[in-house]
Amino acid sequence: MKKLMRGLRQFQENYVPAHKKLMSSLAKGQSPNALFITCSDSRVQPELITQAELGELFVIRNAGNIVPPFGATNGGEGATIEYAVKSLNVDHIIVCGHSSCGAMKGLLQIGKLEEKMPLVYNWLIHTEATRQLVEDNYSDLEKTDKLDMLVAENVLTQIENLRTYPAVRSMLHRGNLSLHGWIYNIHDGRILAYDAERHAFVPPFEDPGKEFSHGNGASQMPGEDRLARQQAQRIFKGSY
Amino acid sequence: MKKLMRGLRQFQENYVPAHKKLMSSLAKGQSPNALFITCSDSRVQPELITQAELGELFVIRNAGNIVPPFGATNGGEGATIEYAVKSLNVDHIIVCGHSSCGAMKGLLQIGKLEEKMPLVYNWLIHTEATRQLVEDNYSDLEKTDKLDMLVAENVLTQIENLRTYPAVRSMLHRGNLSLHGWIYNIHDGRILAYDAERHAFVPPFEDPGKEFSHGNGASQMPGEDRLARQQAQRIFKGSY
Amino acid sequence: MKKLMRGLRQFQENYVPAHKKLMSSLAKGQSPNALFITCSDSRVQPELITQAELGELFVIRNAGNIVPPFGATNGGEGATIEYAVKSLNVDHIIVCGHSSCGAMKGLLQIGKLEEKMPLVYNWLIHTEATRQLVEDNYSDLEKTDKLDMLVAENVLTQIENLRTYPAVRSMLHRGNLSLHGWIYNIHDGRILAYDAERHAFVPPFEDPGKEFSHGNGASQMPGEDRLARQQAQRIFKGSY
Amino acid sequence: MKKLMRGLRQFQENYVPAHKKLMSSLAKGQSPNALFITCSDSRVQPELITQAELGELFVIRNAGNIVPPFGATNGGEGATIEYAVKSLNVDHIIVCGHSSCGAMKGLLQIGKLEEKMPLVYNWLIHTEATRQLVEDNYSDLEKTDKLDMLVAENVLTQIENLRTYPAVRSMLHRGNLSLHGWIYNIHDGRILAYDAERHAFVPPFEDPGKEFSHGNGASQMPGEDRLARQQAQRIFKGSY
Repeated sequence: MKKLMRGLRQFQENYVPAHKKLMSSLAKGQSPNALFITCSDSRVQPELITQAELGELFVIRNAGNIVPPFGATNGGEGATIEYAVKSLNVDHIIVCGHSSCGAMKGLLQIGKLEEKMPLVYNWLIHTEATRQLVEDNYSDLEKTDKLDMLVAENVLTQIENLRTYPAVRSMLHRGNLSLHGWIYNIHDGRILAYDAERHAFVPPFEDPGKEFSHGNGASQMPGEDRLARQQAQRIFKGSY
Repeated sequence: MKKLMRGLRQFQENYVPAHKKLMSSLAKGQSPNALFITCSDSRVQPELITQAELGELFVIRNAGNIVPPFGATNGGEGATIEYAVKSLNVDHIIVCGHSSCGAMKGLLQIGKLEEKMPLVYNWLIHTEATRQLVEDNYSDLEKTDKLDMLVAENVLTQIENLRTYPAVRSMLHRGNLSLHGWIYNIHDGRILAYDAERHAFVPPFEDPGKEFSHGNGASQMPGEDRLARQQAQRIFKGSY
Repeated sequence: MKKLMRGLRQFQENYVPAHKKLMSSLAKGQSPNALFITCSDSRVQPELITQAELGELFVIRNAGNIVPPFGATNGGEGATIEYAVKSLNVDHIIVCGHSSCGAMKGLLQIGKLEEKMPLVYNWLIHTEATRQLVEDNYSDLEKTDKLDMLVAENVLTQIENLRTYPAVRSMLHRGNLSLHGWIYNIHDGRILAYDAERHAFVPPFEDPGKEFSHGNGASQMPGEDRLARQQAQRIFKGSY
Repeated sequence: MKKLMRGLRQFQENYVPAHKKLMSSLAKGQSPNALFITCSDSRVQPELITQAELGELFVIRNAGNIVPPFGATNGGEGATIEYAVKSLNVDHIIVCGHSSCGAMKGLLQIGKLEEKMPLVYNWLIHTEATRQLVEDNYSDLEKTDKLDMLVAENVLTQIENLRTYPAVRSMLHRGNLSLHGWIYNIHDGRILAYDAERHAFVPPFEDPGKEFSHGNGASQMPGEDRLARQQAQRIFKGSY
């Protein structure tokens, strides 16, 4: 708590005086361009990853970046999506999963959760489609690869779930909204974005420096070190 | 979207190389000290406000920083709280509201929302205690002051709601968990923290510089410019 | 049933003629001063325990004197609380648990209930906070002491749950409502009341006669006969 | 509260010493013969009305003595009924309504409740069958008579609802359980019991004294002073 207090002070001493104009302007109202849905995980900071300024990202964060299908719950996700789309008119919704996700690890051993963490257990039912897809089609994968697969498929499940919301569906129909699926690698900070045409998660731009590049785009696929190239590709084709 | 892509690239070119050690270490696991529950509003960035590093804050964000009472919903809030408390053993839970909150504005005119934004309407029922308290006790306030009041009381409502969660109640009993209520002022970046003994929202530390100080602690009360001093004090006494 | 019929007749022959004035007056309307929430247990009679006349106590009784958190159910508890606070303007709400409570015994062996008594099982989920607190913190207690602990903590859980109701929160804010936690000992008829300042359940007044007194106030703690004095004190400190 | 404290003391000074044997015996366990379901109204004291001793009546009390149909809610009513029938093996369930019931008055003007007392509104939906029956068949009655009718029909609705509970249905089938519908008159303390064969609410025994008798059994019908005899009879024939 002391460190947080020190942080608050630093923020007020350094950041605020340097951004008075921006903050004054934002006090009149926000008009973020994107709704960013990601995990509560402390290693994922949406505004840091995207270097977003105050006012740029409207953010939902929960365990597992899950969006329950419309009507399945009366929690905050649906209300916040509705507000973002209908009141703020965001142009983009990004669902961003991440490697080593604790919620996805829970999905791997869902049976143990029912008694120990009943609320987490009930919550993960909203992404049961992910669990079953991976169980049905990739049950032979090793645990680490299966986890990568769950992370990737979970992002696509939430994109589908997003489509079930009336406000989202209406805006998509109008062509005023784009949905994006991302995976963030907590180890090296790289992002993979789902490419519907190529049915694969791919780097959203040319990799900047050699330090994190292995010479070609596909090298960013999680699991590449452990999996045969073809297998890794298959994994990241996703279920679309 | 272009700006976000540029941000991703900057993050990888600048931040990542400079934080390789931290990121490698975090790849092994997270152990955040606090669960930070705040609004989806794009003008509130928890890690910026607290200058938190990767790995320090576990974060829930939804419209209005609302925590439905235990059992009232099967949304992500309860599951994420349970995970934070039982699996990550966080020591602190901070509920952080903010000035000019759109969800609280919705609460001011809840009747209009039922048809226009039904999910937001249903979501705000979880903080009906806030609406009713302000309506019953401060119906004579002007709109801006009433909004400040709603923001403050809403934070306290969520603290009450947090206490109904089994995992939270058990850890509170053990003395291993502290609950904190904060209000963030989007205009000047100042934080007020709820002080249960004084029954008031007060600055959590001495104000650093004169630029943001009016000479004494109580001056940070939202609404002070518009309200008589005594009235502002009464408002921020909260309902504890 | 014959005994009940005999009772009805006695009531009409003896009580009614002697209380004609009171009953006539009450026929015009009720204005009870307190809402008394207690268990359905046949050994707990709220009006007998408090020697309350007709018209004095508004009463909720269910298995385990449980108050589900606001929004967690659409049963009678919330509606009756709302009516008591908003329409009858009661000044006090008393939650009164009791020793040897069958519902709390059920909580001790919750696993066996799911199949055998599914409605009881689902009902006890509303006081899961009690079960978890005791399991996490007092798993080493013997069964009888654990039961005493569950009874005491259950009362405090319901006080927490009460605070989530909009009508209750608003009246608490105004200072027009007090919440009380009591434990009734079915063996000797003694009451312990929760004292928030001392964080303990204590006798609400000096014990009247030596027949039920052990010479000092703290002796009324349930479990004192079985537990070391310090242990009994620790138990009844509760989680506030 | 002072009066309650005085009552507690009187109870301990007078009642407890005179009933030590009974209380000691009951501390070993309860075996009530009947489940008594009645209103929270302060003017209705089930144990006083029936002159029941400690240990004789298992009691549910809520606003309007309503029993939601099986599956309609996860509140305390169903759980308490299940416990009474399956664990305590009660032989009788009595649903006891009463004259001038506030919940039934609410049913008369249900439209006004939705905003003012939303929880009461939602609760009364469980007895919508009562409202609709009276609206459809007795819309021409004056307000007072309609209220009497609602009270009577509400008792019968709850008897029907009781029959929807698995545990109740099974015991009824076995012949081990009887259901009773009573109406308590708060003005003169008289009880009317539903007689299924005569399709009418009638006094459960010969009226004891002339003070409360008008010379024949049917005279106890509420509304007799105001209604034609035939009309009153029709009203109290109920809907069975």
